[in-house]
Order: sequence, then C-alpha cells, then structure tokens
Amino acid sequence: MKKEPSASLGVLHQGEFWFTELHAPGTGITFRVKRVLHWARTPFQELALVETEDMGRALFLDGTVQFTERDEFFYHEMLVHVPLSIHPRPRRVLIVGGGDGGCVREALLHPGVEEVTLVEIDGEVVEACREHIPSVSSKLGDPRVRVLIQDGVRFMKDNRGSFDVIIVDSTDPVGMASPLTQAPFFRTAMNALTSEGLYVAQSQGPVFDGKEIGRIARAARKVFRHAAHFMGPTPTYPGGHWTYLIGARGAKHPAGLKPRPLPRGTKTRYYSPEIHTAAFVLPPFVRDFIR
Amino acid sequence: MKKEPSASLGVLHQGEFWFTELHAPGTGITFRVKRVLHWARTPFQELALVETEDMGRALFLDGTVQFTERDEFFYHEMLVHVPLSIHPRPRRVLIVGGGDGGCVREALLHPGVEEVTLVEIDGEVVEACREHIPSVSSKLGDPRVRVLIQDGVRFMKDNRGSFDVIIVDSTDPVGMASPLTQAPFFRTAMNALTSEGLYVAQSQGPVFDGKEIGRIARAARKVFRHAAHFMGPTPTYPGGHWTYLIGARGAKHPAGLKPRPLPRGTKTRYYSPEIHTAAFVLPPFVRDFIR
Repeated sequence: MKKEPSASLGVLHQGEFWFTELHAPGTGITFRVKRVLHWARTPFQELALVETEDMGRALFLDGTVQFTERDEFFYHEMLVHVPLSIHPRPRRVLIVGGGDGGCVREALLHPGVEEVTLVEIDGEVVEACREHIPSVSSKLGDPRVRVLIQDGVRFMKDNRGSFDVIIVDSTDPVGMASPLTQAPFFRTAMNALTSEGLYVAQSQGPVFDGKEIGRIARAARKVFRHAAHFMGPTPTYPGGHWTYLIGARGAKHPAGLKPRPLPRGTKTRYYSPEIHTAAFVLPPFVRDFIR
Repeated sequence: MKKEPSASLGVLHQGEFWFTELHAPGTGITFRVKRVLHWARTPFQELALVETEDMGRALFLDGTVQFTERDEFFYHEMLVHVPLSIHPRPRRVLIVGGGDGGCVREALLHPGVEEVTLVEIDGEVVEACREHIPSVSSKLGDPRVRVLIQDGVRFMKDNRGSFDVIIVDSTDPVGMASPLTQAPFFRTAMNALTSEGLYVAQSQGPVFDGKEIGRIARAARKVFRHAAHFMGPTPTYPGGHWTYLIGARGAKHPAGLKPRPLPRGTKTRYYSPEIHTAAFVLPPFVRDFIR
C-alpha cells in the first residue's frame, strides 16, 4: 500500500483533531479525524481505523494511510484488473497482504476466477476492516475466498506452481515489508506462479521515491522473464501518482497485451480497457528512474 | 491554477511553521515553510512567495498553492505542449494569467512560435516571480515575449482573430477568476482565435470537484466547435489528478490529432507524444461527470 513512516504530526485546532502524514520531512497530507473506530498495537504494527471528515473511513498502519473509502478505488482497481484482464485464463488468484479485502472484491468481478486466496500476516487488520469498513471488506466471506492468517513468503514456498496471478498488496518496503521488493522475494513469488502466471505489486510513487522505483525495477528484471511498470493516480499516497510493477513468468510481455473487457454491466470507476493501455505509457522522468 | 480558497491552517510546531491548504473542509496538503520571500496584499489578491522544505519555492495566491518548483512541470508542460503540438502552425500564442512565466517558458520550446503575449492582471505576480523564482520566470525577458499588465478579457475583445493558441493559466474559478469558466468568456476567447485556433485551460480535479468539471464541459460545448478534456497528475493540487479543457474553433477534433514531436534534444519531464495521446483517455468516473 504505502509510503515509509516518517514522523507524523497530530494537532488539536479549535477542539478538532487533525492528523498529518508526512510524505517527506516537510510535506504531508492532513485529515480531520472525526472518530477513532479501532486502535490497536498488534504483534506486527500500529493499526488505526478512523472516520475522516471528507474521505470516509480510513485505515492507517504505523501512521501511514493504507486507503480511504473515497479514493481506494484508484488503487484496488488498477492493482487487480490490469493483471486479471491480460492473463489468458486466471482461475486461481493469490493476494499477499491486502487484509482489508479491497483486492478480493475486485478480483471476484472476473467471472473465470474460481478461487481467491488471501494470505495476510496480521489477523487484526482483517477483523477490524470486516467490522468497520464493509464497503471494502464485504467480499471476504464469499465462498470462492479463503482467508489465511499467516506469513505470505512461507505460504508461497509451500505452494509452488499454484497461482495464475499473485497480487502483493503490502505496506511500503520499509520494516516488516522491506524484503517484499527484493529479488529473493520475487523469485519465491515467481516459483509460486503457473507457467503463464503474472505477478503484480505497488512499486512506489515517482514524486518522492523515484530512486526506489528504479531499485525495484532492477530487482524485478533479474527474476521475471518480463517486467514492466504501469501507473495511475492515488490521491492519498505521496505525490498522488503511483507506479505498479508487473512481472511475467511466461513468454508474453505484459505491456503489449490487449486487455479482455470485464463482463458487460460491471461497474468500475477508474479502470477501463482504454485506461489499462494508457497506464503503460510512462512519462520521461519515470522512464529515467527505471532505465 | 487551483482550488477554491477554503480556510487554511497555519500552525507552529516545535518552533517550525507549518502551513496547510485545505482542499475540502477536513482534508489538505501541508508544507513546512522555511522562509517567506515576498508577501503582499496586491490590489487583486494576497500574494505569498515562500521557500518550502521539500518542494522548492512556491507561489500562493489567496492561500492556495499555484505551483511549487518541484511539481510545476506536470502542469505547465501539459497545459502548453498539448495544444502547441497539435495546432498545425502555432505562431502567435496568448497566455492569459500565468504571470509566473511557466507557460511562457514551455511555449518557447516550440520552434514555430514567433510571439508569446502574456496578459496578467496582477503585475506584482510577475515582479515577484522574476525576482525569486527564475527557474520558472526566466524566459519572460525573451525577445519573442510581450508582457502586458492588464485585464485579459478586455485584451481579447480588442484583438479578435489574432491568436493561434490561447492558454488560460488562472487561479480557480472563484472570486475574480469565476467568469473564466463560463460561456461568455469562452466566446470572447474563441473570437480572439484564428480560424484553426485552440483554447486550453485547467478545468479542476475530479476527486473533489467533479461537478465543476461537468459544468465547465457543458459551457465549453455551447461555444467551441469541439471541446475535449485531457488529464495529468498535479501533486500539489487537490486530489493530485487534474483535468484540462481544450476547445477548437476549427473543424478538427483535438482529441483525435497526432501530436508533432518537439525538436530533437528538447527535454520535457512529464510530457511526451505518447503521454499526450494517453492523456485524452478519461476514466469512467470522469466521463460520468462530463457527460
């Protein structure tokens, strides 16, 4: 999901509570928090589920926004529909992280999907989101969905050659999540894919973390047969403009494939087949980072 | 340039000055301000030129960010290169507003441009940016540039049929700038265009102001022979994801035209001919607003 936990800043202003997440030492995004719905220090992280004034409910992990109800569609739609619309026949999908259920909800829109396995390390994220954010978590109880509370790396090592699409929906590559953008992790994930399998993950934003995008790209190119990036807006992530990494185990380069449309009547807000194709066009300053 | 002036919030935190621009009643962007370079209440607005910790120097008008040095390229490149790369022969360019010089700088990258006229109502914006932000204002002294401190509407009424491209680079459509997104203004601008002329302006962001985009689109369709929108990231504008309106006086629809590449060796950071084409692909939720 998002950006490294620099310090964050909470202030009381005329009796209201305002919270600022810093995206750089002196730049951040500020929300007025109306109510804290759930707060816990879990074995893995600090979890806060809050109600904001404008952005709906929001999940913070270690002080960084994971999503808000108002803007989560940008991220979840792109992370899921891009790989699932170009894999020739995605039946088994693995989601690593993503305990809020946003990726699960989107994956189930693809009629060929028979089984979605969610492997989340922190069970309290799943429970809190099921209780407080049904708009995102509502499909976690679908019969096609298996929710496993365990370590994703261990799970992938135990399930080689098993998944058509693997979606890593994790916090930013610092602390607990820092191995998730390194070559050994990519290798573990690739080995858990079927022969034409696709891997996808968020890969940071270019406004504040361009060098990190480059590092991730180089690690991915060492492992996957093909690796590419696509982009989309993410209003509450640093810089508002985000990259996603897609890696292919098979022979076809994912950037050149024409997406299969979603079934007639499926409502998406950001994603469309035309947006899919446009999202692979990278601006010059981003191309420079991943060269 | 940007979003309506809702209240803004300045706080001192451990001896540092932090400034928040609100994009909605309880959501905003926060900067640490290291130094105020210029502050004035001009006859038109409150002008503040500040040095921020991360974003370089920044211009605020009436408490709303107009640009920061770190992210202005997204906005200025898209606003200028899209129309200038599809007009068949842009020789005379008019910029209404834009006293910072960012649009002028980009327009002069097009070798066919013979004359750029900047009509800015507030001379103090021009003076302050020339003194403090040369990275943006440096081309205001170019011999091809005429800087006029006067009202843009009056100027366009006095110069019918005169400009190949008109770029409106104004504050948001509230207060002084509110007529700039209405049909009578569009008619004045269209009459100042040559027969194949193109009009372009920022037209708000869909995350917080989708209805406003729709209103602007409907007004533009009443006036221009063709009107279309394109999009691009704007990290320091509300929602980080912005729309631009392009209106055509001539018979060709601007959305379908293939852009002419910039001269070999011209360095742009966000714009490219491929980004140009991709920028006209609107996501479903934005199409819904402008229907």
